[in-house]
Amino acid sequence: MHYVWDLANPPEDALRHFGARGRSLATLRRLGVPVPPGFAVSDVACRRFLEVGEFPAGMWEEVVAAVESLATAHPERPLLLSVRSSPPVAMAALLGGALHVGVNDTSLAALARWDSPEFAARVRIGFLRGVAEARRVPLHRVDAILSADQRRDPDGPAADAVALQELIVEESQRPLAPGVLDQLQEAMETVFASWDDEAARAFRRRNRISDDVGTSVVVHLMVFGSADTASGAGVAFSRDPQDGAPRPAGIFTRNASRPASVAVYPGLDDLATSDPPTHAELLSILCDLEGAERDMMRIDFVCERGDLWVLEARPGERSARAAVRIAVDMAEAGMITAEEAVLRIDPDGLDEMLHARIAPGTPAVPLISGGAASPGAASGGIVLDAERAVAASLRGEAVILVKRETTPEDLAGVIAARGVLTSHGGPTSHAAVAARGTGTPAVTGAAAVVCDPERRTVRFGTVAMSEGDPITIDGATGAVYAGALAIEEATASSELEKLLDWADRFRRLDVWANADTPDAAAHARRMGAEGVGLARTEYMFSGGRLEVVRRVILTDDVKERARALEELEELQIGDFERLLESMDGLPVVVRLLDPPLHEFLPDRWEVDAALRRAREAGQDTSELEQLQAAVDHWSESNPMLGLRGVRLAVVIPEIYRVQVLAALEAVRRRLDARGDPRLELMIPLVGTVEELRVIRDMIDEEVHYAGRQLEVTVGTMIELPRAALAAADFALESDFFSFGTNDLTQTTLGISRDDAEEAFLRTYLERGLMQRDPFTTLDRQGVGRLIEIAIEAGRSVNPGLVIGVCGEQGGDPDSIDFFDLVGVDYVSCSPPRLPVARLAAAQAALRHKESSRHAGVP
Amino acid sequence: MHYVWDLANPPEDALRHFGARGRSLATLRRLGVPVPPGFAVSDVACRRFLEVGEFPAGMWEEVVAAVESLATAHPERPLLLSVRSSPPVAMAALLGGALHVGVNDTSLAALARWDSPEFAARVRIGFLRGVAEARRVPLHRVDAILSADQRRDPDGPAADAVALQELIVEESQRPLAPGVLDQLQEAMETVFASWDDEAARAFRRRNRISDDVGTSVVVHLMVFGSADTASGAGVAFSRDPQDGAPRPAGIFTRNASRPASVAVYPGLDDLATSDPPTHAELLSILCDLEGAERDMMRIDFVCERGDLWVLEARPGERSARAAVRIAVDMAEAGMITAEEAVLRIDPDGLDEMLHARIAPGTPAVPLISGGAASPGAASGGIVLDAERAVAASLRGEAVILVKRETTPEDLAGVIAARGVLTSHGGPTSHAAVAARGTGTPAVTGAAAVVCDPERRTVRFGTVAMSEGDPITIDGATGAVYAGALAIEEATASSELEKLLDWADRFRRLDVWANADTPDAAAHARRMGAEGVGLARTEYMFSGGRLEVVRRVILTDDVKERARALEELEELQIGDFERLLESMDGLPVVVRLLDPPLHEFLPDRWEVDAALRRAREAGQDTSELEQLQAAVDHWSESNPMLGLRGVRLAVVIPEIYRVQVLAALEAVRRRLDARGDPRLELMIPLVGTVEELRVIRDMIDEEVHYAGRQLEVTVGTMIELPRAALAAADFALESDFFSFGTNDLTQTTLGISRDDAEEAFLRTYLERGLMQRDPFTTLDRQGVGRLIEIAIEAGRSVNPGLVIGVCGEQGGDPDSIDFFDLVGVDYVSCSPPRLPVARLAAAQAALRHKESSRHAGVP
Repeated sequence: MHYVWDLANPPEDALRHFGARGRSLATLRRLGVPVPPGFAVSDVACRRFLEVGEFPAGMWEEVVAAVESLATAHPERPLLLSVRSSPPVAMAALLGGALHVGVNDTSLAALARWDSPEFAARVRIGFLRGVAEARRVPLHRVDAILSADQRRDPDGPAADAVALQELIVEESQRPLAPGVLDQLQEAMETVFASWDDEAARAFRRRNRISDDVGTSVVVHLMVFGSADTASGAGVAFSRDPQDGAPRPAGIFTRNASRPASVAVYPGLDDLATSDPPTHAELLSILCDLEGAERDMMRIDFVCERGDLWVLEARPGERSARAAVRIAVDMAEAGMITAEEAVLRIDPDGLDEMLHARIAPGTPAVPLISGGAASPGAASGGIVLDAERAVAASLRGEAVILVKRETTPEDLAGVIAARGVLTSHGGPTSHAAVAARGTGTPAVTGAAAVVCDPERRTVRFGTVAMSEGDPITIDGATGAVYAGALAIEEATASSELEKLLDWADRFRRLDVWANADTPDAAAHARRMGAEGVGLARTEYMFSGGRLEVVRRVILTDDVKERARALEELEELQIGDFERLLESMDGLPVVVRLLDPPLHEFLPDRWEVDAALRRAREAGQDTSELEQLQAAVDHWSESNPMLGLRGVRLAVVIPEIYRVQVLAALEAVRRRLDARGDPRLELMIPLVGTVEELRVIRDMIDEEVHYAGRQLEVTVGTMIELPRAALAAADFALESDFFSFGTNDLTQTTLGISRDDAEEAFLRTYLERGLMQRDPFTTLDRQGVGRLIEIAIEAGRSVNPGLVIGVCGEQGGDPDSIDFFDLVGVDYVSCSPPRLPVARLAAAQAALRHKESSRHAGVP
Repeated sequence: MHYVWDLANPPEDALRHFGARGRSLATLRRLGVPVPPGFAVSDVACRRFLEVGEFPAGMWEEVVAAVESLATAHPERPLLLSVRSSPPVAMAALLGGALHVGVNDTSLAALARWDSPEFAARVRIGFLRGVAEARRVPLHRVDAILSADQRRDPDGPAADAVALQELIVEESQRPLAPGVLDQLQEAMETVFASWDDEAARAFRRRNRISDDVGTSVVVHLMVFGSADTASGAGVAFSRDPQDGAPRPAGIFTRNASRPASVAVYPGLDDLATSDPPTHAELLSILCDLEGAERDMMRIDFVCERGDLWVLEARPGERSARAAVRIAVDMAEAGMITAEEAVLRIDPDGLDEMLHARIAPGTPAVPLISGGAASPGAASGGIVLDAERAVAASLRGEAVILVKRETTPEDLAGVIAARGVLTSHGGPTSHAAVAARGTGTPAVTGAAAVVCDPERRTVRFGTVAMSEGDPITIDGATGAVYAGALAIEEATASSELEKLLDWADRFRRLDVWANADTPDAAAHARRMGAEGVGLARTEYMFSGGRLEVVRRVILTDDVKERARALEELEELQIGDFERLLESMDGLPVVVRLLDPPLHEFLPDRWEVDAALRRAREAGQDTSELEQLQAAVDHWSESNPMLGLRGVRLAVVIPEIYRVQVLAALEAVRRRLDARGDPRLELMIPLVGTVEELRVIRDMIDEEVHYAGRQLEVTVGTMIELPRAALAAADFALESDFFSFGTNDLTQTTLGISRDDAEEAFLRTYLERGLMQRDPFTTLDRQGVGRLIEIAIEAGRSVNPGLVIGVCGEQGGDPDSIDFFDLVGVDYVSCSPPRLPVARLAAAQAALRHKESSRHAGVP
């Protein structure tokens, strides 16, 4: 069995043991690109090494022979080796490696002759630093020996190499190996062993890569960019990695073993000026490579005394914007198909293009951070209540609303503010949901924020600020900054439009939006929504209307309640009418009231405090006492599992009845206006088929009562495990199912999302006890299994059953892949996620085109 | 097609259309027992009638012919008919019926001749009362016409029949039919139509009887117990229905159409004295019937002018105690098999024998009522805190602990009190669970109870009482009474012992107990428990130990925490040691800590109030502030779905580690004492297999560390839907599964038990939106399905996997039937339910013996 092959002309079937780097070098060589001479060591050797703790029999002999033939073939060069990992996936940076292997008195003398004694000394220091790192010598002890220059530049002027060598021997209790082969053995063992390092394991867990793969190793002769001023190191891209423009870009640093900066010059202009022949050679290589690989390529190269050496070529990193432009340009040029273009873009990466962000390069350190609740960055003056946010917005001022938490009363403030920051509440809190619905950036649950509404001040950890002071929030990361940082607005991209048009042609899943207001629905429609999959009617119960809702809840007087209900009905008719108008001709799924009633009452603590104050002031407290009793009555120990959803409608039928009447009246008015209203009513938190029947009967009665025969589609939210398990019963009474994956995840996993994120979910993710946040990416084993059971059972009795998804996961690419696989008809997501969902749905369809759909989860 | 048959000698295949009453009369007649001449009308006729609203073709002609042949055969008797429903199951009382059908001028004249004009007048009144009821004339208007005597005795002296007849015509807007056939038609239509009455439908829903069955009707000549003083009416039982003694019992009332009381005389002594020949005839009939039916029988009879007529015979109602004695006596006499004896007893009925109850016949009206949380009745003086309960109990006083709610601090008080009454909290509140665990009667969540611990008074609705005043509570009904009512203690029964011994021979399921303390475990063992299926270690963290637990939670000082943990470990070693000693040789499943930590901290309101008081008094508040911060830190919006169970162990590993160490040390000490400890460790609220692995690794490490190789069985609680769906993964890492059906029901149905019972569950049950309380009887469609999925998946990868159930439903007969069916190995229930569970398990095994086990749910 072979373990070692020359990089030049390896047998074709050996390439699969080369890893990414080795394969790339062999391919470059075959294309005639100059790469340093060397050889690859098989990943099989790594696996055997990890199993038994030593190299497999015969491997070392092959390595020795390969080193000898390198030395024989290149007598003019010092025998110094680069030893680098070559794993099959992009994780080389997490694994070990060594440079300058072979440094000893003999080779240093040869190096001094080849270049200069100073150069030899620098190489020696570079070698020793690598050994120190591999042997885990504490960095501060290494740094204490090296000069400032050397610390900055590993190949900088040499200092006391002897002291460093002594430190290594002392710390590792092992002498330095003198011979090239001994050093090579140590370096290879380090690389192999690094496959099992905790960081590497964690990376593989996150990326679902098996631990059993192992890494190959690439060994080649060192080439030196720091040899003289005709030498240097660089990176070149075949297209611009920032904006995707179809011209090469890169950077070259003279007399150095690596480029001095990460910024790149369009056209690689620095090299074009200083070394036109090398520049021309590079452009030609990039052009060939892009043609061969059909992708934008990056090469890492060294220029040694005027000779170009390519160390690695791989698809280049790029910004999201560049990725989209490159894919579309290549497809339009016929280099790749539209399908390939669509498949190449990471849907999650689109977020970067679609939302405002803090201008790249802005130097700023966050004051504190909280939960990333609604993407986008915003800056503005602090305001501490919704009224002031509205007033300031009317004056044209940019403000950030900062509160302990928001309630339905604050909705107008959330809309008026540029951003929202709360100290309490998780990603399903009112602030987070309202912000995502209105496209307002938000950071929630930032525990270090302490508001003092009486003194009109806020503390951010130890920093005190006052209302009006400017801050900046980043809803994509959860960071909060002092001052108004520069914001780069999201910009339209014609390439993205084109890509999404292609995606729309390929996808099978329809993409709808969660939108509660006519404005949100109109915005969603512009972003490509083919329907509204979730209109939360509780958002119609907010702001000034809360007073009416409270009268319904608080009064014992039948007539008073009837009056309040009538008022509510009239308000909702207008809401529904405008919503249906926004989405004329497209379906609008209206969810009947879902949250527990106490959400419409003031906070228990506030009422208690107000009551205490009133008593102390000797005021009349009877109304406050009544309010306190109501708040007490409606409070629950676990409201998530309490009196909400359809249960409300069973216990207090008037509220649903009023909602149904209002929706029907809105439909009639739209019909009278010659519109095309497509109302669908959705019933939340259903657990027994009897509940569904009660509401359906009520709806049928009202439809009948409405006189004119209206078509109303009625569907069931599947958000309890029982509903999924008993889906066949529900399907007989439903026109559609909509999976409420937020609640279904909470109940299936027994996790309250708002409590869990801080309390343990983060720990779980960090420690690998969960692979992904199940509230972001659907848990296939539990929640996904229930979805499969429900779809299968539902369609078996009602083949025309429409299946939708309206939880957060409806906008997540991995989850969309699953929904496509199991036969969902549409996903509904928050409007900002629409482009992501459209792209992900197309990718899922393309991926599943050839695999058998519905065959189950892979 | 025939619809009508004579009760004498009907064809055998017609009997299935007779209903229970008709079949019984035909059988009696065949045995030579005197029954009134008559005929049965088929249930098929009823079904057709309900479908199309009229009698099926040909039926009425058959009825007319049958009536004519009755008249012809019995010319000596007035032609008056009894028309009664004869449904296939015991629900005749819910359906219609009519007596004295045929009353008109002619028949009344004949009746006057046959007996007396007064008698005829009484019969007329009786007839009219029946018509008034069938035509739904308001009872108060009927009563306004009748004299007091007539209201008491429907066949009492007659008053103004004319006025009553006018009222009926006026109210029903329909004249009275004059002829016997017209009246018969109206009576039969009333009976048929009553099948669809709401009460009848509700009964069938509760008892899972199809609505499509319909009822038969029995028509026979009236016989009159009120004819003269040689006449009368009675009820006789073949054995004593109170205590089951093997001697007849009954009651006979002279000159009446029904017996005057429900109390029965042993030996039917009143009749034996007054009419020895009839008494002898009755005893002979009862003896024959019991022999034929192989059960204790009841007959309803009339003595008319010295002639005995039996109106009905059926298995007699009996007390639970009598049922047990009769079944055992009959089995020992060889009349029935032991299997039959076991199958005849309603397991839920045993509760009546096993707990103290308010002495039957005690006249008392409840003050208020709450949730029936722990069965049994108790009386005693009110005490308002646990300390006083303990002190009073040491003085030998009987007390009832009355509080807003109890916490782990109050455990000693719950044990010391005769009963517990709380104003807050449902059936899973601390008070309810602690009371059931210690066998203390309890009523919880009685909202009308308002305690004032400062004034030492309690209000029960409008009634004010003081500490020390006597009250009585009934934990089986939730009723609370003023004063100390007479209590009848539970008494041992040798027949029950025997029956349970037989049950133990038949059952396949093992029956274990939930027991947290050595005393409870010892008690459970005496009651037949074959193991402890759930020892909740949080009960070791109560009373005086709370202070230690709080130190663990509250301190930031590592050393201080370590000291507190060490103290806790020492305390728990003793607990575990005594528990294992109590159950020596039997398995003891110890559940590691489950509840969220805030349960061990004081109530948020109390801390707030204390802090306010301290501030007002100008005291040092730093400690209280620290406590408030901790309470705030650990508070959750949905604690049921929060940081509890295994999640605690992931975030704060020390607590589980200490519990494991303590348990292992207890095992070692028991081994040193030559005991046979069978410790099993159980991990609660597991949702991902990674969680399980973390804890298993920790346990393995500690077992290893313990030096001596201890055998420790480790199991997973399946109480989240995800755990059931991913059971195959868990089964590979588990020795056993234990279904925590309380939590599994909460998550599968999305119902917080404590919130739901009051808020909507009661409404759901009343309105038939749920058939049974899912926290009492397992929901087969949802929770049951998950259990099936988990067992199948678990056993498929680990055939030796032991399966237990430790939720409340583990003691419920219907649920036990399901657990037997799907292959559970043991159920664990609260100690008072052990006899119920043993019996129910035997019945399930006997029922499933011939059906194919594991074939799925019927």
